[in-house]
Amino acid sequence: MSFHPPKRTLMGPGPSDVDPRISEALGRPTIGHLDPEFIRLMDETKTLLQYAFMTNNELTLPISAPGSAGMEACFVNLIEAGDKVIVCQNGVFGSRMKENVERCGAIAVMVEDEWGTAIDLDKVSEAIKAHPDAKVLAFVHAETSTGVESDAKSLCALAKSNGMLSIMDTVTGLGGIKVAVDEWGADATYSGSQKCLSCTPGLSPVTFSSAATEAIKGRTSKVQSWFLDMNLVMGYWGGNAKRAYHHTAPINALYGLHEALTILNDEGLEQSWARHALNHSALKAGLEAMGLSLPVEESIRLPQLNAVAVPDGIDEAAVRSHLLNDFSLEIGAGLGALAGKVWRVGLMGFSSKPANVRLCLSALETALLAQGLKLPAGDAIQAANAVYSD
Amino acid sequence: MSFHPPKRTLMGPGPSDVDPRISEALGRPTIGHLDPEFIRLMDETKTLLQYAFMTNNELTLPISAPGSAGMEACFVNLIEAGDKVIVCQNGVFGSRMKENVERCGAIAVMVEDEWGTAIDLDKVSEAIKAHPDAKVLAFVHAETSTGVESDAKSLCALAKSNGMLSIMDTVTGLGGIKVAVDEWGADATYSGSQKCLSCTPGLSPVTFSSAATEAIKGRTSKVQSWFLDMNLVMGYWGGNAKRAYHHTAPINALYGLHEALTILNDEGLEQSWARHALNHSALKAGLEAMGLSLPVEESIRLPQLNAVAVPDGIDEAAVRSHLLNDFSLEIGAGLGALAGKVWRVGLMGFSSKPANVRLCLSALETALLAQGLKLPAGDAIQAANAVYSD
Repeated sequence: MSFHPPKRTLMGPGPSDVDPRISEALGRPTIGHLDPEFIRLMDETKTLLQYAFMTNNELTLPISAPGSAGMEACFVNLIEAGDKVIVCQNGVFGSRMKENVERCGAIAVMVEDEWGTAIDLDKVSEAIKAHPDAKVLAFVHAETSTGVESDAKSLCALAKSNGMLSIMDTVTGLGGIKVAVDEWGADATYSGSQKCLSCTPGLSPVTFSSAATEAIKGRTSKVQSWFLDMNLVMGYWGGNAKRAYHHTAPINALYGLHEALTILNDEGLEQSWARHALNHSALKAGLEAMGLSLPVEESIRLPQLNAVAVPDGIDEAAVRSHLLNDFSLEIGAGLGALAGKVWRVGLMGFSSKPANVRLCLSALETALLAQGLKLPAGDAIQAANAVYSD
Repeated sequence: MSFHPPKRTLMGPGPSDVDPRISEALGRPTIGHLDPEFIRLMDETKTLLQYAFMTNNELTLPISAPGSAGMEACFVNLIEAGDKVIVCQNGVFGSRMKENVERCGAIAVMVEDEWGTAIDLDKVSEAIKAHPDAKVLAFVHAETSTGVESDAKSLCALAKSNGMLSIMDTVTGLGGIKVAVDEWGADATYSGSQKCLSCTPGLSPVTFSSAATEAIKGRTSKVQSWFLDMNLVMGYWGGNAKRAYHHTAPINALYGLHEALTILNDEGLEQSWARHALNHSALKAGLEAMGLSLPVEESIRLPQLNAVAVPDGIDEAAVRSHLLNDFSLEIGAGLGALAGKVWRVGLMGFSSKPANVRLCLSALETALLAQGLKLPAGDAIQAANAVYSD
């Protein structure tokens, strides 16, 4: 029997709500992966991604698989067995980076910070001093597991000034906050389709600087993944008129991504960042009026992913079930060190809008009252509305 | 600007025409990858895939990336550095298997057959005798580059009787001809969504026998790909009530695959094979009436992928351009050793229907006449129709 999903409002850590323009694009007629019209789509997608990443990098394209594969593409292409990589960890995705490094037969030097805090630049400097032979510095710009932004610009600069390449995870960053690949000098950067781009999950935009591209071309060993070998992928996505078949591209998913990037282009990057910031402020005002707190320090808080502290005595899973069952609203649980301690409320892409802020506040209030929590007298919706009318 | 693809008829080596039921499914509302309703979709997809693969294998699921990643998933999970693998090569995909083996740090023993012929069982037996320490036998059941079926049942039996595991590529086979994973005893099998399942490209159904699953669980080294590590993937797709997040599944693409598998289930496997066989016979009758020949020997010819010899003096690329530009019809070029020598005409899934057979015959006739080819007096459409009315 055909599957008919319920209509949800997606305010977790991703996927986010998909713009109807994108849903419609997905169903357009499938064409061949070497069709001249498809080549045109690829060229336009590259240009649109360069805009989103703020880069002129020639090697800019979507990997035909989810963000985890984008991460892997960066690691397996830049790293060879025996290399040393400094990996910053302040959430789930740093530990996934460590896995990637070790599976390349390389050595991961971990720089650990507490979950919910930003990467400490001083610790990174010390690690670089202690390991002058490290080849790559890897870090998460926007940690999806905690809602923290780290100082990507300074981290890229630290790498560069020490002759290292940088790998930057900005799966949750792209489109929601500034991601300036060229200005920062990031060498290998990956993102995901299903966060602030509001596309369906399954694709991972990546971009490689000329230094990274040279490193990939100059490897002494083959990339361990055939599917993710950028030396081969660039023969298909590259600038040549003649595209060499590598793998069959996910045609319709790419229609969706093209539409998502067109929407971002139409809105404008800075307008998109401003919208994410505004809706975050409204959500924060409402949550605080309800007596809830956002444990991540304000200066490093991602507007698109809000960690909200679970009040004492509240069964966090029951609240999420209440929201899902009675409001068809999805918010996220905490992960790892934050499991049971926070909810993660996403305001990403098409989900970042006043209607969602109001729905989330009223639903959360209802669910908390149902659990017997005493809430302060302030009106959360009015507090949010006050932000919009400022 | 939004991208609006032309409407093509896809009769190349894949993607094939997508059933409108599938296009519609793709645009349904996105839900979360841990939503209880999505878990239900995953369970149903597994059952539908078990039907398609004719297996009870517990570890049966779609890899969240195209067929090349499905191939890689089989190799990187079953093979460890230093292992020896016998790889049969009678087309493009055998050489891609060799790449996979070598990138695992393993040794590929190649058994080569001419392109356009089936795998020679005697040569495989000899290779096994010469390399009793080989762990895996890898082969292509349905070679997309040549249109040849090899004797998968005997190859799996050869592997088993010599204590080896088998890896079977049936990207182009599944749904178009019999693929009996349990009856044949295939250990690791992968396919693609965009061939005889007529879904959009981007997913790779795989299935692992209990012997393969034990081998994966008993590895002495970690799988070199984190994204494709079945030890982790099975925690998300496995039978437990508690699904552990691994990567964000490509939700909407999976709606499409579920619909494609539902369509196959509704039609019935044997009915689908019979339809593929019938349309192949009609195409063949029409092509032969036109004086064109199918160079692959009849007993090993894939009904869903027809290699057609390019007549002397004909510019094969000009014919394909003519079909694309004047008929919006895509057929495939030859690859590798067959480049310039054959076209590849697909009759896969939703593309396998009388209307497509007739379109292809009339378009090809027009394009060949335009190049000045003298065609025999027989009427191709009448010859095809005669097959349908038998």
